[in-house]
Amino acid sequence: MVSKNQIKLINSLQQKKYRNEHQLFIAEGVKVIQELLQSNIVLEHLFATSEIFSSFDVKAKTEVSTQEMKKISALTTPSSCLALFKIPSQNSIEKSGLIVALDDIRDPGNLGTIVRLCDWFGVTQIVCSKETVDLYNPKVVQATMGSIARVKVNYLDLNKFISESSLPVFGTFMDGKNIYKEALPNEGIIVFGNEANGISSEIGKNIKKRIAIPQFGEIQETESLNVATATAIVLSEFRRKN
Amino acid sequence: MVSKNQIKLINSLQQKKYRNEHQLFIAEGVKVIQELLQSNIVLEHLFATSEIFSSFDVKAKTEVSTQEMKKISALTTPSSCLALFKIPSQNSIEKSGLIVALDDIRDPGNLGTIVRLCDWFGVTQIVCSKETVDLYNPKVVQATMGSIARVKVNYLDLNKFISESSLPVFGTFMDGKNIYKEALPNEGIIVFGNEANGISSEIGKNIKKRIAIPQFGEIQETESLNVATATAIVLSEFRRKN
Repeated sequence: MVSKNQIKLINSLQQKKYRNEHQLFIAEGVKVIQELLQSNIVLEHLFATSEIFSSFDVKAKTEVSTQEMKKISALTTPSSCLALFKIPSQNSIEKSGLIVALDDIRDPGNLGTIVRLCDWFGVTQIVCSKETVDLYNPKVVQATMGSIARVKVNYLDLNKFISESSLPVFGTFMDGKNIYKEALPNEGIIVFGNEANGISSEIGKNIKKRIAIPQFGEIQETESLNVATATAIVLSEFRRKN
Repeated sequence: MVSKNQIKLINSLQQKKYRNEHQLFIAEGVKVIQELLQSNIVLEHLFATSEIFSSFDVKAKTEVSTQEMKKISALTTPSSCLALFKIPSQNSIEKSGLIVALDDIRDPGNLGTIVRLCDWFGVTQIVCSKETVDLYNPKVVQATMGSIARVKVNYLDLNKFISESSLPVFGTFMDGKNIYKEALPNEGIIVFGNEANGISSEIGKNIKKRIAIPQFGEIQETESLNVATATAIVLSEFRRKN
């Protein structure tokens, strides 16, 4: 049984303002919740339907009906479980290795996919401009498929971070050098830009290594690649060379 | 001014059944519509708000108010234009070059992104199992960002197509060979599988070249990559080697 106050709290957590106020975020679905339970992130409360309730070995849990799940889920087709986790305190930032920097990524699905890609390619640190979509947006959490538990994501003054770093700084530009032919180190910052506007000119000035993914289509009219697919190709290219 | 009958028709085209009945599909947004107008695909009718109405040099157009646009758009934030295009007749299938084969892709965003990737990497033919999401689903059209006008997509008996082809057949599997170390030809069929279940066992039997994208994270718990990001990496790898 889920109380009216619980429903109100959970629905409010769709908004960043209330996530910050309560320091809680929502995760939906078996896979994501199981990954989070195995991580250092602390469970606040779990809600699950009877079919799956007993499979969770946690104390703070409540069995709910499918009808109740519909009231707390933001998904069109609600999952069998939903959990609230405590937002972890901001970690210290790693300043070595391969770092992915996000300049104003707005789409939750893109951020989630990029977190998942970083996890796959062993990139443990993402730094985001303050305008980038919130990591704890439920759609981001969903799209990470549990990788959110293993990749550190910090929000900061991105231009300051980049200009103060001693690492080589890479960014993708239409007129950049062919990534397939460039030597790529196993340490550096790789910047990806906003969906509509790309990398901001302010940050662009601090990017010395301008790279591009070559286009192979006969008609060169294709819109630039989606930022998540560009991230996939760039990370693959960095890792295959090391 | 948009009539009640037009509103009813446009809304019905969200469903495949009515798209097939009327042989029409919806495109929303300036970029997608402009790309389609430049292609061989035939415009049925365009609806646009005053700000952008005069910029379209077509006869079959109607100026609509922002309120009217809300009634015909399926987007949360409607664009300034929406157009109906005639569904082109199924093209003959190219049987040479690099062909992407989709085995039961269900997510419209994934199919749209894959069409866009094929356009970028010069893959002009996609073949889909009959269970794959409809190309003319408005969310697919949207995600292709206009690439739908340049890539041929056919729906067919995928297993029959693959088993009858003389091209080498590739597919991604967790236990496949490291794609970075494999010789990759510039002709072949590359199969990508369903989001939840991967490539079906029936089709898997016909795949002689089993490849894998290596995982670099220390903890090897990451869910397999999203199918659209896997497609990005695989196509990049095929093209960089040729």
